[in-house]
Amino acid sequence: MSLAQRLGIDLPILQAPMAGVQGSSLAIAVAEGGGLGALPCAMLSPEAMSDELDRIRAKTTRPINVNFFCHLPPESDSACDARWHQALAPYYAELGLDIDSVPAGLGRRPFDAEVCDVLETLRPEVVSFHFGLPSPTLLERVKAWGATVLSSATTVEEAMWLEANGADAVIVQGLEAGGHRGMFLTEDLTTQVGTLALLPQVRAAVTVPVIAAGGIADARGVAAALALGADAVQVGTAFLCCPEATTSMLHRRALQSEAARHTALTNLYSGRPARGIVTRLMRELGPISALAPAFPLATAAIGPLRSAAEALGSGDFSPLWAGQNTSGCREVPATALLRELASEIS
Amino acid sequence: MSLAQRLGIDLPILQAPMAGVQGSSLAIAVAEGGGLGALPCAMLSPEAMSDELDRIRAKTTRPINVNFFCHLPPESDSACDARWHQALAPYYAELGLDIDSVPAGLGRRPFDAEVCDVLETLRPEVVSFHFGLPSPTLLERVKAWGATVLSSATTVEEAMWLEANGADAVIVQGLEAGGHRGMFLTEDLTTQVGTLALLPQVRAAVTVPVIAAGGIADARGVAAALALGADAVQVGTAFLCCPEATTSMLHRRALQSEAARHTALTNLYSGRPARGIVTRLMRELGPISALAPAFPLATAAIGPLRSAAEALGSGDFSPLWAGQNTSGCREVPATALLRELASEIS
Repeated sequence: MSLAQRLGIDLPILQAPMAGVQGSSLAIAVAEGGGLGALPCAMLSPEAMSDELDRIRAKTTRPINVNFFCHLPPESDSACDARWHQALAPYYAELGLDIDSVPAGLGRRPFDAEVCDVLETLRPEVVSFHFGLPSPTLLERVKAWGATVLSSATTVEEAMWLEANGADAVIVQGLEAGGHRGMFLTEDLTTQVGTLALLPQVRAAVTVPVIAAGGIADARGVAAALALGADAVQVGTAFLCCPEATTSMLHRRALQSEAARHTALTNLYSGRPARGIVTRLMRELGPISALAPAFPLATAAIGPLRSAAEALGSGDFSPLWAGQNTSGCREVPATALLRELASEIS
Repeated sequence: MSLAQRLGIDLPILQAPMAGVQGSSLAIAVAEGGGLGALPCAMLSPEAMSDELDRIRAKTTRPINVNFFCHLPPESDSACDARWHQALAPYYAELGLDIDSVPAGLGRRPFDAEVCDVLETLRPEVVSFHFGLPSPTLLERVKAWGATVLSSATTVEEAMWLEANGADAVIVQGLEAGGHRGMFLTEDLTTQVGTLALLPQVRAAVTVPVIAAGGIADARGVAAALALGADAVQVGTAFLCCPEATTSMLHRRALQSEAARHTALTNLYSGRPARGIVTRLMRELGPISALAPAFPLATAAIGPLRSAAEALGSGDFSPLWAGQNTSGCREVPATALLRELASEIS
């Protein structure tokens, strides 16, 4: 059985779950188009997740991929917070904000028993994870309703670990990919590998199917990934300008501008490295900073800056997530994009 | 006319010029196998280059690619040298060497009028450059004997610059590639892009043919690059263990070990970022260090450490250049490797 058959989809194309820039609408459109639509849940409460899944179920009978982060929530560290606030203080002053009233807030919720309780009643066909896998107990519960489990690997070692620990297929996340790196066995960014180099090495190291992600933005990219031995591809960035995405106008404009040619991995927005278009914040503090609190605690103090700047039409403090190939970003319906992506599959 | 036809080769496969690990033997084998063999000249005197080209001409009538660096030699900076020597002093002490007797030496010679004088009499069919292009006067002399001129681009901007300034085809050097980054319009490593993402963007931005380099190590990689729109591919790392290469035993063993899974960009060995297997020196000083003198001046003080350690069987201080995909490194004749690489070209 091919991976697409196992996933119950017509096209070997997965839409990458992208928390903060899409919800049920994009997932429904992709599912109806024959790909695997995804609902990112890292920034949703269990209630909001349940509502979004109800919306999806009302609109499509196709399988769906529900995505979670599975990090360990860190201890808050007041000395670290103080250094972070000090680094951001000039920006707070510039925008007339009070650095002493930064709201608390975790920013992203990991997959846990409470979420699993809700999910169990909804039984999504595919459950995918970023940053490894949840505890064996939780993973067993997910598998018990028959879900296919996916997770991202950024190195050969991570792919082998995921296979050994129960992933049914591995998403091979090349360095080109936008958003958060799925890395979980290392924090060393020099270990991160381009898609063209990583995919064949993972393919040789594991027996589960492999899904290529990172840098794929058009039909030729899809054909190239399949030629390389991928069982399917995952595309994120190219969907960001579809009308079904909730990407902000500011983010959409950036994606379709020259600025999108220069992305970098940054930990400033969340505490973990993620790829986005280079912003003023990244230029001035350096994209990777030891000052940023642990994931996802860095997010809280960025929020007010982002909101205030965006209200002035500026993306100086916004996480403008994007991969290294934004050439596929156009304002076309997701189904049309999906058809284009699939047009050179033989 | 296809690029392969213009270059006069049967297969759309270029052997990457790799200074220090290969000479005429590999170039001859690749040329006779139907690919484009290359002679790297950055570390050769004009006399040695002339001898090597004579050897090539005696063995094959196929076209050959002669490769040069075209950096501006930097001013030596004694304060910088002193800091660099201080950083290396503990290693000199450990190996019983005298840090005050570091030999002078530029390490790499850029393409210049004297080299061009010699080359003009030998009229190689293809001349390729790294770090941009030589002066318009020198470039005109090269073109006057009918040579096809290639150069490497690591960004869309560099590809456009190369086309505008006379390159006949552009080598698209993805982040996965081993050895020196060809970057010349920027020193910002965050601008460097994976092959799968960079190739289609360069292809859309220039009209000259594009050659994919970085991460290609087997027939599927070649097929993928061609599916992506490349007119040809350039393969380096996979040739390093061929008997025709001059790669040291130590380097060969590293390439075929688990250590090869972790490469990084480092400026410690030459002053410019280049990709190699992570060594003790890279781990202890950090792979990118502000202490390293400008290219190619960092090389001089590394030389004695490298020689002394290699005599003890250690690669702690050796530049073990390698790309991010060493899975193609096997001890097979270059012609056999070439046949394999070409086996999925339709």
